[in-house]
This record gives sequence, structure tokens and C-alpha cells, in this order.
Amino acid sequence: MQAHVRIEQLLVELSARLSNSTTPPKLTQSIDYALFPGGARIRPRLVIAVSEAYSTDKRQSRTAINASAAAVEMMHCASLIQDDLKCFDDADSRRGKPALHTVWGAGNAILTADALIVGCFQILADEGIDSATSAALIRKLTRHTGSCGGITAGQAWEAETTIDLDAYHASKTGSLFAAATELAAISVGANPDDWSRLGLLIGSAYQIADDIRDTIGNTNDLGKPVGKDVELHRPNIVLQVGMNKAVARLKRLVEDVVESVPNCDNRFEFQKTVHQEANRFIPKEIDRYAA
Amino acid sequence: MQAHVRIEQLLVELSARLSNSTTPPKLTQSIDYALFPGGARIRPRLVIAVSEAYSTDKRQSRTAINASAAAVEMMHCASLIQDDLKCFDDADSRRGKPALHTVWGAGNAILTADALIVGCFQILADEGIDSATSAALIRKLTRHTGSCGGITAGQAWEAETTIDLDAYHASKTGSLFAAATELAAISVGANPDDWSRLGLLIGSAYQIADDIRDTIGNTNDLGKPVGKDVELHRPNIVLQVGMNKAVARLKRLVEDVVESVPNCDNRFEFQKTVHQEANRFIPKEIDRYAA
Repeated sequence: MQAHVRIEQLLVELSARLSNSTTPPKLTQSIDYALFPGGARIRPRLVIAVSEAYSTDKRQSRTAINASAAAVEMMHCASLIQDDLKCFDDADSRRGKPALHTVWGAGNAILTADALIVGCFQILADEGIDSATSAALIRKLTRHTGSCGGITAGQAWEAETTIDLDAYHASKTGSLFAAATELAAISVGANPDDWSRLGLLIGSAYQIADDIRDTIGNTNDLGKPVGKDVELHRPNIVLQVGMNKAVARLKRLVEDVVESVPNCDNRFEFQKTVHQEANRFIPKEIDRYAA
Repeated sequence: MQAHVRIEQLLVELSARLSNSTTPPKLTQSIDYALFPGGARIRPRLVIAVSEAYSTDKRQSRTAINASAAAVEMMHCASLIQDDLKCFDDADSRRGKPALHTVWGAGNAILTADALIVGCFQILADEGIDSATSAALIRKLTRHTGSCGGITAGQAWEAETTIDLDAYHASKTGSLFAAATELAAISVGANPDDWSRLGLLIGSAYQIADDIRDTIGNTNDLGKPVGKDVELHRPNIVLQVGMNKAVARLKRLVEDVVESVPNCDNRFEFQKTVHQEANRFIPKEIDRYAA
């Protein structure tokens, strides 16, 4: 089954556990609105890709792999909901449709994010996954989403007057990519630490690509407002070092990503996949810039 | 050690894990602001009390008991932060001091709640707790905090036009009390289902006491605004059935609570404790009303 089909299927299946007859109808609808239709699903695709870097016999725990893929995507969707709120980016569109809070209200938006965050841990603690794996997955996910270098810390750096840009990007963007590679590794019984650097590098590349898109993209292509970094006085590498250097850094990072793939059963195929995936989020326009 | 001393100690110790050098300074401070000084700490007191209803040899996993106590309190504090936001109750004071968002801003308030929610799962997945216990604790906590009958569902009912009052109270208030009794039971190796009803009943009693306080209390005694239910058109049992019936129901509930204590090693002592604890949150003024 193709990765994108598998991901949509498992998101439909696992997100169904987030509502039942005791769930207020509007909350059920806003959870659905937050998850479908999705964006590029890059993080769960990365989970599936890392798991497939191991031989079939190590991929026995499909429940753990699927739960990991769904959890990183649900956490990502929760972070997007919060990012778009008036008190953060005040963005009115996302993934080509009105931002969730503009449709369902700020209160329901906050609760939808809560539902998704709690839901991640619910599906990772599923009884179909052995307890030791569950506990390890949950420890890693909390590490990458919480207030110690996780996405919560990343977002909170924006409220500080002095920011370490690398720490900010590593936590705001890198951490969830690291969660993707590390949770996948845990799910196949590999050492998550071996996969940590790869996740962070992909996160860095993604962040630079996002900064470039915020500078040159247009709202229709991107599905969300552009030029937000300037408007919100937020760090953007293009604004800091110029387009040529930013593009050069992005291209170098993609090479670093490919080289940093750790030993695994299907290393070569995985490197090819990673290269293809990188092309999904790198803006086409960059070929005009630095070689 | 007295329960309240133990609870403050463990909250200080466990909340310290929610920030390190990678945590933005304001977030570290707002997490501290959210947790200290606390309110009555009723939920973690309930965790400790249930654990002490079992003999010492069953209370070996002090790490699990402490993590459970801290988790229910951290989750409660997170829910208070969100409740007070402009898009929910728009309350400007809590626990006798300015509400968190009025001091740290709405954005930081939302992130502080995130940090606490993720932090709960982090401390329950601690390596010092055996994996099977961790996974069971996390499953229960997600059940009582998520969108299927948990506090997220409870809060979201307020945005609906038609509400089942019992379902609303059970999820908004009862669920976290049930989490307290059930997590405590899991921590001592007892069956959490035996303790579920007790938690829900305590939650119901607490909710009625809260409704009564909202009607007759004054802001100084309570540390938060009163009369909010009328202002926000929210269900309040006193407004629905009158003070006499509400007080009668509360008194009957306290008796039900005491009778519903399941079999355990120190049942009699636990019943005494529960009676004492109930008196901590029952408004003194009710003696004027129904016998």
C-alpha cells in the first residue's frame, strides 16, 4: 500500500477513537476539520519511511508504527491550530481553507488541540502495543513536544526578547521531525538515538524551505498567508542572510540529511526516499538562486 | 509526613522536570505561577488517601503514586488556565491572585497549559515506574482528560446549545476525580474500576458545592469571581432546583460517597478521611439550609 493511502487510512481509523457518544458534536466536527484534508503529511510519511528502512521481520508491530505516525501528525495539527490563533500568528487560513478558530471559535480551537494532544498519548498507550514500547514512545514524544526543548518551548521562544535562533528552530520545527524518526526507530526495535540527528537535520531543512516560501511564496500555492515573518517580526533566515545564502544552506542541508542516514537494513532505498521527500517541500523557485 | 507537605514537595520536585536550560524563561516562570501557591489540592490529596487505603506492602511504588498525584493536579491547573481565558470564562482572578493569562498573556497561558498536559504524561512514563503500570496510568488519564467523556469534552459541552447536565458535570468535574481514585488504585496494584464510582460521586459533590459557592460565596473567600454561572448562562444546580434542594442533594451525596468506598485494607480510616476532606470543600453556610 502506498504511504499516503496508508496514512489517510490510519488517521481516519485512529482519530475515530477521539470521539464517541460522550463527545460534544461540535468538538467531533472540529477534530475532523483539523485533521482532514491534510497537508503534505511529511512527518507521518517520515515515520513510515524510517520503519521501512528495516526488514519486514522488524516491522511486526504495525500497531506501534501506525500509532507513531498518527501521533506525530496529530501533534503537528494541534500545533497548527494554536499557531493560527489571534494571540500567536493571527492567521485566517491554513491548508487552503479558513483557519480552524475562524470557523469553530477560539475556545473550540483550544479544546480541539487539547483533544489531539491527549489523543496522541491515548493511541500510543494502546493495549495492542507492548507496555515497554508504549512507555518508550510516550517518553520520546513528551521530550519533543513539551517545555524542555519540545514544540511548546519552541513556540514560547517567540515571546522572549532574546532568542537563540538555532535553539528556537530546533525546538519549534526540528523536534517533531526528530520525534518522527525516533518513534519510528523505537517501533521497529532500533535505537532512537541513532535516528535523532537525521530528524533534526530534516527539520532544519524544512524550516529554511518554509522561511524561503514565506518570502517568495504566494498564499494560493501555500494555503496559508505569506509574509507573516516580517509582519510578526519573527526570525527568518532569508531576511537574515539573504536568499542566495539561505538557498545554499538548504541545498547543503539536504545533502547532509542523505549522508546522515544511520545503518539500517535498507539504507540505500531509504536515502532515495528521503531525497524524493525533500523535493516535496523544497520550493521549485530556488533553482534561480545559488548553485 | 502529612499529605499536604508531601504534595507540595512532590509538585516542586516533579514540576522541576518541566523546565531546563532549553525552556524559555517566561515559560518556566508561568509554569511555576500556574502551580504555586496551589488551591486546596483536593485531587492529589485524594490520590494519596486512596493509596493509603491499602497496606504498606502494596504502596511500594511510591514513584507511581507521587506521579499520579502530581499528574492529576497538573492537569487540573492546566484546565484552570484554559477556563479563565477570555474565550471561556474571561475570569481575571484565580486562587486569590491575577489569572495567569492576565499576567503572562494569552499565548503564554495556552503554552503553559500545553507544558502541564504534556508534562503529566512525561512523569507518568517515568523510567522509575514499571512499563505496564505507566501504560495503564496513561490510558486512564487520557480517558478522563480527552474528548471522550474527559475534561476536554466537559469544557466543550459549554459551546453546545443542548446539554445533558449530568454528562456535562461528569466529564467536566467528575472525570478528574475519577482519574484521581483510579490512578491511585492502579499505582497500588488494585482494580481501578472498583474506585471509579467513588471518584465520580466526589466529583458530583464537589460540583454542587462549587455551584453553591458561586451563588452565595464572595470573591475574597473564594479567590475567584463569583456569580459567573449566571453571567455566562451556565448550568448551576442552585439556579435550577433552588438552594434547599441543592443542599439536600449535596448532603446525600456525601453520605453516598462514604458508603461507596470499596473493599480495601483500611476502609474505615479511609471513610473517615473522605468525610474530613468533604468538609474542606463544603461551604459552611449550608447549615442554614435543608437538614
